[in-house]
Amino acid sequence: MNPLFERARGAKVQLARLTDAQRAAALEAVAGAIETRGAQLLAANAEDLSRMDPQNPLYDRLKLTPERLAGIAADMRHVAALPSPLGRILDDRTLPNGLRLRKQSVPFGVIGVIYEARPNVTFDVFSLCFKSGNVSLLKGGSDADASNRAAVSLIRGVLAGLGLPEDAVCLLPAGHDAVGELLGAVGYVDLVIPRGGRRLIDFVRDHAKVPCIETGAGVVNTYFDAAGDLETGRRIVLNAKTRRVSVCNALDCLIVHEGRLPDLPALVAPLAEHNVVLYADEAARAALDGRYPLLEAATPESFGTEYMDYKMAVRTVASLDEALAHIDRYGSGHSESIVTADEAAAARFRAEVDAACVYVNAPTSFTDGAQFGLGAEIGISTQKLGARGPMGLAEITTYKWLIDGNGQTRP
Amino acid sequence: MNPLFERARGAKVQLARLTDAQRAAALEAVAGAIETRGAQLLAANAEDLSRMDPQNPLYDRLKLTPERLAGIAADMRHVAALPSPLGRILDDRTLPNGLRLRKQSVPFGVIGVIYEARPNVTFDVFSLCFKSGNVSLLKGGSDADASNRAAVSLIRGVLAGLGLPEDAVCLLPAGHDAVGELLGAVGYVDLVIPRGGRRLIDFVRDHAKVPCIETGAGVVNTYFDAAGDLETGRRIVLNAKTRRVSVCNALDCLIVHEGRLPDLPALVAPLAEHNVVLYADEAARAALDGRYPLLEAATPESFGTEYMDYKMAVRTVASLDEALAHIDRYGSGHSESIVTADEAAAARFRAEVDAACVYVNAPTSFTDGAQFGLGAEIGISTQKLGARGPMGLAEITTYKWLIDGNGQTRP
Repeated sequence: MNPLFERARGAKVQLARLTDAQRAAALEAVAGAIETRGAQLLAANAEDLSRMDPQNPLYDRLKLTPERLAGIAADMRHVAALPSPLGRILDDRTLPNGLRLRKQSVPFGVIGVIYEARPNVTFDVFSLCFKSGNVSLLKGGSDADASNRAAVSLIRGVLAGLGLPEDAVCLLPAGHDAVGELLGAVGYVDLVIPRGGRRLIDFVRDHAKVPCIETGAGVVNTYFDAAGDLETGRRIVLNAKTRRVSVCNALDCLIVHEGRLPDLPALVAPLAEHNVVLYADEAARAALDGRYPLLEAATPESFGTEYMDYKMAVRTVASLDEALAHIDRYGSGHSESIVTADEAAAARFRAEVDAACVYVNAPTSFTDGAQFGLGAEIGISTQKLGARGPMGLAEITTYKWLIDGNGQTRP
Repeated sequence: MNPLFERARGAKVQLARLTDAQRAAALEAVAGAIETRGAQLLAANAEDLSRMDPQNPLYDRLKLTPERLAGIAADMRHVAALPSPLGRILDDRTLPNGLRLRKQSVPFGVIGVIYEARPNVTFDVFSLCFKSGNVSLLKGGSDADASNRAAVSLIRGVLAGLGLPEDAVCLLPAGHDAVGELLGAVGYVDLVIPRGGRRLIDFVRDHAKVPCIETGAGVVNTYFDAAGDLETGRRIVLNAKTRRVSVCNALDCLIVHEGRLPDLPALVAPLAEHNVVLYADEAARAALDGRYPLLEAATPESFGTEYMDYKMAVRTVASLDEALAHIDRYGSGHSESIVTADEAAAARFRAEVDAACVYVNAPTSFTDGAQFGLGAEIGISTQKLGARGPMGLAEITTYKWLIDGNGQTRP
């Protein structure tokens, strides 16, 4: 086993001992170093960029600039200033025998994060993990390896200079072998979070022996109900689909009640300005024919697809029941929305949709840690064990029970 | 795939719709049926018993009697009367734009439980899952198959008679194939909990693609500090080791500060009445030689072993640091205790021991859902994702975010 696992585990206790003031000061110091020693980060990044075709869509994500470094430093200062998620007393009870039980929030310990060619994630994950008392065990993509090594070396240097454990952040080798080692590191790694595309997430879920959180992939639906307000619906559909098409909360399928097909052209009209292609089922296509410029016939694959693009499916249903069944079958448990003025329909939608975020008369574009007031976000969980939905600092802590007695025994 | 998976998934929404009064009434009705139709359960159980050697240690666990059935019915009525863990509002905030966010407790959906030859677990798991709105997808041991089939058939009959979804409880075939299917049922099963020995738990953790909770195995230490009170220590060690040796919170290793070796014979003296064999390291053995009747030399395997028997290791340390290092190396993150009158030592122990339950001056025998006031217990989690420590009804729920708006959009 890579000796980094043992070192990460070893840093756990030292890290848990720090005060929040020490954590915040260290993050401030790292932010300062990102600014003053940006040149070495940019030089390493140039090395990575030189190995990638500038036409590759990943090129822009890989690229660091002085402005982006300033943004990274600002984000780190923001995290430094957030309230500490540690030491919160979640429960406090005294039993009849005098035994006192307190449930207290504590770090997970070592958090492994697997991600792709985005060097900013290195700083982002480190700041969230460090603020919450967790060791970051990072596995970045090989495309960004020089950038990641420079970033981790900078952070470790700052920590060492402050007399803090530099193993608070460890970078695994970029090759694929390290993924397997990380996923199997029972006893060393307390949680693994994959940040990337569907393939990476599925691989992690299927192979992890350590606990993992499935993140990200969002097949997102919005249902325009029989009692939906047209103007509200227009705003919601436009915002959910076009605010940013490359994010997981973006709308993938508009479900429309058949009684509202006459309103469908007006409902989707604003999307035409953004050149959104609609993949409509037969009834919707009939309603839109000649009234929407970019119209295609839906195929079975149109539903259940995360488009990440200016594309959207349109499905017609005869009832709320049919809409709920569509969501149950095709949704990914991320974010689902209903547009309706009928409170009974809204109540059923809230109760029966099984998703992390269930919206009534609002667009799914709000699914985001910062928007939810969680301060920052390390990812969005689409599973139900542990955190569900946006994960901020509190969502990467666990708890322990502290039991204080004076010699009580159990009969 | 076994059609039971689809049926369990299908029952999820119907089950989530029930009121708590309906859930409680159904559990009352099942408890009544266990009493009035006990004969058919006992007949099925006799069939299982006839296939097992009465000398087998599992025989007693497998056996049902009228008294045990009465106990099972009483436990079910107790669960029926507990407060509902569902619909709790865990967070409620309104954003500056007027969007209201509520975080509400909801069922997981389908919970798979894999267990061994204990037919009472069938009723136990069903009652906890049903009360918390979850479908139980059960995989029992083949030794208890006739008993389990009779139990599930009785429950399903009662539910059907009340017009409730009988697929709220489904029993998978007893063979090993069903385990693999259950662990791979992504999209059908929301959580898997293994209840059994180390081998079963390791298998589930290593092979599950669906989220799982590692339960149970407890390698439990108690540290008698330099400043430990002898009388308090005697009571705690005796209770933690001998109250019930076959449970996961039972003491496995006494760690003693070297300065207290002269007190060691008195500390462990009460264990001799229970014929507890001590596996002591060299220093402890020297202190106990001729002063404790059942003394053996510790081997490297003596530490890190869950004895489940009248056996205990004894380890000598020179400091609290050494005790903490021992626990970090050999403990299983279940329950750890310190006996000390020194508040500084207690504070370090609380802060640095990484376990679900950390005790000061109390025996680990208290690690139990009912003792903690959780009402009942489906297991004890030794992992950090999701519930940690004793799991009651609240610990087998998850949450969703409900977001209500009036057409707000995200800039």
